[in-house]
Amino acid sequence: MVESRLTGQVRVVGVGLLGTSIGLGLRARGVDVILADASPTNLSIAIDYGAGRGSLADDAPRIIVVCVPPDVTAQIIAAELLAYPDALVTDVASVKLAPLEELRASGADISRYIGSHPLAGRERGGPLSGRADLFLGRPWVVADHGGVSYQRAALLDDLILDLGATLVEMSPEQHDSSVALVSHVPQVISSVMARRLSDAPEAAVNLAGQGLRDVTRIAASDPELWVQILGANSGPVVDVLREFRADLDRFIEALEHPSQGSSRRRINEELAGGNTGVARIPGKHGLDRRYSSLVVMVDDKPGELARLFVEIGEANVNLEDLRLEHSPGAQIGLAEISVLPEVVQRLTDELSQRGWRIAG
Amino acid sequence: MVESRLTGQVRVVGVGLLGTSIGLGLRARGVDVILADASPTNLSIAIDYGAGRGSLADDAPRIIVVCVPPDVTAQIIAAELLAYPDALVTDVASVKLAPLEELRASGADISRYIGSHPLAGRERGGPLSGRADLFLGRPWVVADHGGVSYQRAALLDDLILDLGATLVEMSPEQHDSSVALVSHVPQVISSVMARRLSDAPEAAVNLAGQGLRDVTRIAASDPELWVQILGANSGPVVDVLREFRADLDRFIEALEHPSQGSSRRRINEELAGGNTGVARIPGKHGLDRRYSSLVVMVDDKPGELARLFVEIGEANVNLEDLRLEHSPGAQIGLAEISVLPEVVQRLTDELSQRGWRIAG
Repeated sequence: MVESRLTGQVRVVGVGLLGTSIGLGLRARGVDVILADASPTNLSIAIDYGAGRGSLADDAPRIIVVCVPPDVTAQIIAAELLAYPDALVTDVASVKLAPLEELRASGADISRYIGSHPLAGRERGGPLSGRADLFLGRPWVVADHGGVSYQRAALLDDLILDLGATLVEMSPEQHDSSVALVSHVPQVISSVMARRLSDAPEAAVNLAGQGLRDVTRIAASDPELWVQILGANSGPVVDVLREFRADLDRFIEALEHPSQGSSRRRINEELAGGNTGVARIPGKHGLDRRYSSLVVMVDDKPGELARLFVEIGEANVNLEDLRLEHSPGAQIGLAEISVLPEVVQRLTDELSQRGWRIAG
Repeated sequence: MVESRLTGQVRVVGVGLLGTSIGLGLRARGVDVILADASPTNLSIAIDYGAGRGSLADDAPRIIVVCVPPDVTAQIIAAELLAYPDALVTDVASVKLAPLEELRASGADISRYIGSHPLAGRERGGPLSGRADLFLGRPWVVADHGGVSYQRAALLDDLILDLGATLVEMSPEQHDSSVALVSHVPQVISSVMARRLSDAPEAAVNLAGQGLRDVTRIAASDPELWVQILGANSGPVVDVLREFRADLDRFIEALEHPSQGSSRRRINEELAGGNTGVARIPGKHGLDRRYSSLVVMVDDKPGELARLFVEIGEANVNLEDLRLEHSPGAQIGLAEISVLPEVVQRLTDELSQRGWRIAG
């Protein structure tokens, strides 16, 4: 067991995905984790799952992490500040300015509150979706409002580092405008695009390819949660959506007169701007230019994909990225394999020799 | 070799990705494929690559496939109709009404022309990106304008079936409005979204997660090609973009007054509409509810992923979908594995017992 940087108890309020994952991660480092939840059922599941223990009368947590839905975050933070007058309180809500202002307005002691936001999640919620390693390598924003002493804030830093996340410091305003751009507006755009499909002809929807699937994937997210997030960050989200709409208006206007000489140049500029923007996203993504890809046809039965990866391993090639796709109605899947450009030809040759069909 | 349904020669004009792939696919079935291209260099590459042979004076192709950029498609179709007065001519452009109208206006013999569009592609272009199996299991639209005899049109059906694609019949108008919705508008939306990132603060872009990556993946597409496609299908694309904008306007208006009682209900309705729309897309995609997923941590070195898939195979579990993700700066990748819901717990247990870390 790697020793924790934290000393003393950590109290986690709300045992959904994030709260349970924090509990599991800290327990794995030997921290004494106290769990609380409005639902006795969820609380007992999280305790049985190993995320921590129930609270006792003489608990004295040094740090409290509030992991409840955005709508009730400020209210629970205020209650915890009152109940534990020596503790630092943080939260993990995906909006940071609204709860801070609510706390200020209510006269809460914000010299002991510092908001934070781990950029981690998965589709499923609830305690049983929690994982000790959920935060590993993910950014975790600390939204410092300047009113917390360095010594107190260091407790939160230790907790974040204990969970293997990467600490990122931002002001609450900077956080909210950042996530409006990279998370909240993409959610809105994806949902609005997907909505266009809801009454589309079946024949049209059947022509859908990977592009549409990617653009609309997150449109499957939970409306209840997103109503709360978007409502709490409406200012920054509206700002970005208006800029998006201004760009879209220009695009539509250019397309309305496709035969005008300037139309093509303007459309080209908008599309090239998209090229520039997507190239700025760090890490691996579909059209990543650092890798070359090949598509291998794989029979849709157990063991076939395993055989493929064994043989890629035998060729001593490291897979950089991978995407599976099934053709509608086909018994064959397509595995799109991304590798370093210098090995793609060798891998293609090796796999072909071993009888794999390279599908282009 | 599986025998071809086609008899006689097939002429392919334009040896980019699609033309070369058609040549390779038909050659693999023993068809006599004649290649032509405006670029002698590309033509000689495609011939060396095995996609067909150069043309001879006494060639008498029964079917000609025009695979050139959208801007010049109608002009090349007209030239081929004149040069080969007994042949059926088709094309593979992603817009179908504009070339047909251009041909009608020019007085071309459209009783020998029937447009088509294979829904297949990859990021790379040029003859060397061609693959014999590119069309396998993909939809291939035949856009019948009603003026071609059944007997002639059957030649195109045979070619499509030879290449392993799934034949889909539509009118040119139906095709163009369908691809506007499922392909052209998603491209515009993705590009406009990505453009917002082009001058965003570095700190914001660094918080990007998988959602933003998915929404903006196709924004990396080639502007030159898309200017031609969007210009040729501007009417249907503008129609869908206006509907999108009307939905977006409603969304923005609701978000501008987040404290109004009706605002939340309206936002919820828009998001729920996105849920409904994305659920209509056939086949496998990220948040597919038919599958359950688990995330396994994999060391970023050759053979590790192979070992994982061998052990999944040994557990006799079939992988339904798979997505790899790397945490920024981490030496560990996350493999998100989708399986049937009834086996996810057993697989989680088996992999945990074998020492794999399940990352949530």
